[in-house]
Amino acid sequence: MMDEEILKLLRKDPTAFLSGEELSHRLKVSRTAIWKRIRHLRSLGYEIEASTHSGYRLIQSPDILTPSEITPFLKTGRFGKTIHYFHTLESTNSQAYELAIQGAEEGEVVIAESQSKGRGRLGRIWFSPPYLNLYLSVILRPEIPPHQASLITLMAAVAAVEAIEIYSGLRPLIKWPNDILMNGRKMAGLLNEIKSEADRIHFVILGIGINLNIDQKMFPKEIQTLATSLKEETGKVVSRKTFVAYLLQELEKWYNIFLEEGKTAILKSWRRWAQIKGKQVKITSFGETMRGTAINVDSDGALIIETEDGERKRVVAGDIEYI
Amino acid sequence: MMDEEILKLLRKDPTAFLSGEELSHRLKVSRTAIWKRIRHLRSLGYEIEASTHSGYRLIQSPDILTPSEITPFLKTGRFGKTIHYFHTLESTNSQAYELAIQGAEEGEVVIAESQSKGRGRLGRIWFSPPYLNLYLSVILRPEIPPHQASLITLMAAVAAVEAIEIYSGLRPLIKWPNDILMNGRKMAGLLNEIKSEADRIHFVILGIGINLNIDQKMFPKEIQTLATSLKEETGKVVSRKTFVAYLLQELEKWYNIFLEEGKTAILKSWRRWAQIKGKQVKITSFGETMRGTAINVDSDGALIIETEDGERKRVVAGDIEYI
Repeated sequence: MMDEEILKLLRKDPTAFLSGEELSHRLKVSRTAIWKRIRHLRSLGYEIEASTHSGYRLIQSPDILTPSEITPFLKTGRFGKTIHYFHTLESTNSQAYELAIQGAEEGEVVIAESQSKGRGRLGRIWFSPPYLNLYLSVILRPEIPPHQASLITLMAAVAAVEAIEIYSGLRPLIKWPNDILMNGRKMAGLLNEIKSEADRIHFVILGIGINLNIDQKMFPKEIQTLATSLKEETGKVVSRKTFVAYLLQELEKWYNIFLEEGKTAILKSWRRWAQIKGKQVKITSFGETMRGTAINVDSDGALIIETEDGERKRVVAGDIEYI
Repeated sequence: MMDEEILKLLRKDPTAFLSGEELSHRLKVSRTAIWKRIRHLRSLGYEIEASTHSGYRLIQSPDILTPSEITPFLKTGRFGKTIHYFHTLESTNSQAYELAIQGAEEGEVVIAESQSKGRGRLGRIWFSPPYLNLYLSVILRPEIPPHQASLITLMAAVAAVEAIEIYSGLRPLIKWPNDILMNGRKMAGLLNEIKSEADRIHFVILGIGINLNIDQKMFPKEIQTLATSLKEETGKVVSRKTFVAYLLQELEKWYNIFLEEGKTAILKSWRRWAQIKGKQVKITSFGETMRGTAINVDSDGALIIETEDGERKRVVAGDIEYI
């Protein structure tokens, strides 16, 4: 795409001007065409100085999540090498799912600046206003049996908290099965959607929503006391493109650990970040409610609790509340 | 659709003639339009007698699997109330999957007369020549945890063998996990494809391929000694539309049993049809091969075997060979 090409050339030497003639020569289009693209880039938030004599110079880039903004920060092998970028989607997971059905490869990423039907677990809404947060889906094609898919959720939760820690120094808590909390408030959520047959997984869509720059008061009333953002917790505006690069790097790292070393390392790290052992919990699972003490998470990612009358139960799905 | 309307009216009294005028009046179209549809129906294989004085009379219907051919035989509550019919599809499962993503309801059925990319388990090919066999997919939306999805495969296998038994008197064998054999040769196969998240199933596409009227010699060389059909085994041509009605009825019956009574009834029936206990088997699972004695299928549908050195193993996916 021409915009990306122009930005690439302007970025090469940020201090020097690049003449319209040079640009038009390199990209094999007219100088008028270059000028139109520059105007378009400015409308996206790029500050581009234009001098009649010297040409163009890139002063500042906006914090948008286009491939050309993210790529310079990206240190991954495969994750995010292809980024499908959208201003608005119904949901990045639905888009990634469709792309995966059509054959998109492992590591391809879908990012949207906002979602009109952002979803959390169990069909719940994920609040997805534009340009503030991160809504991202990665396509995975692990050759594992379907019953191990829940480990991918645990793996992604570990990767997400570690990306948050590396970027901000914060130490959030993982809440089983797939929420990330800071001071008891939800900062991020994961939604993995799977296409499988009895014997194998066709693909997993690893969906992540992280509240980055949203202010407390911008959340809808119902979740204002329940949600938080990286900016709220650190007092600093997050560079979203830098953060995405960190996140994709952690995701790729932990995914490789999972594929190469299996679940032990994932579970160990998950347990450390979740600190669930001994917590008093109330669990709602398939319409039933029970109370008890969290014992641990077993090797398939299921939660083991001891109920009030001393019975051990294994919970594969549901909501927990710390009481 | 007008064809369906015309057939419905002609079927009401199969001995009587229905005048072109009457038909054109009932369907609110011209007599020429009626005549064009009659010509079209004849091209599909409908024998329709036309008399200048008396009108039209339906003599015989072709064995095609259109909704209007199947519906008169159908005794189900929901299954097959909507049938999406195609001459050719890449695969009925892919089509049903797409429909389900777009919101198609439980019990909607996709049927194709042939498949250009018919698939079996693990991406294998399912031989799908036109007008001889059955390629059918049902959309299910069970509210069960994802780890119970393999029970749907067992349930469907039981329904399929019972439909075969009811229709033909044959007593095929279920081969774990999803094949149906007659005299050691494959007669039918199941392929369930699932969309899920960690906590819940969005939908299951129950795909079934059954060799009905294909002759032994029409199978590709590689599978000629491995495959069979209902016609080969009984010596009689199968009325495919009647068979579809039986199959959908059994599927609905067993699905309701599964939802209402849980897995016990399914497992009991599956075990009876599979007769796997004590069989010597060779298993290939995720690249590994092992030999042993089949013990049973556990309550999640996994195969339990005892290896030659007395160790019990649980196999969740793979291929078995009776040795």
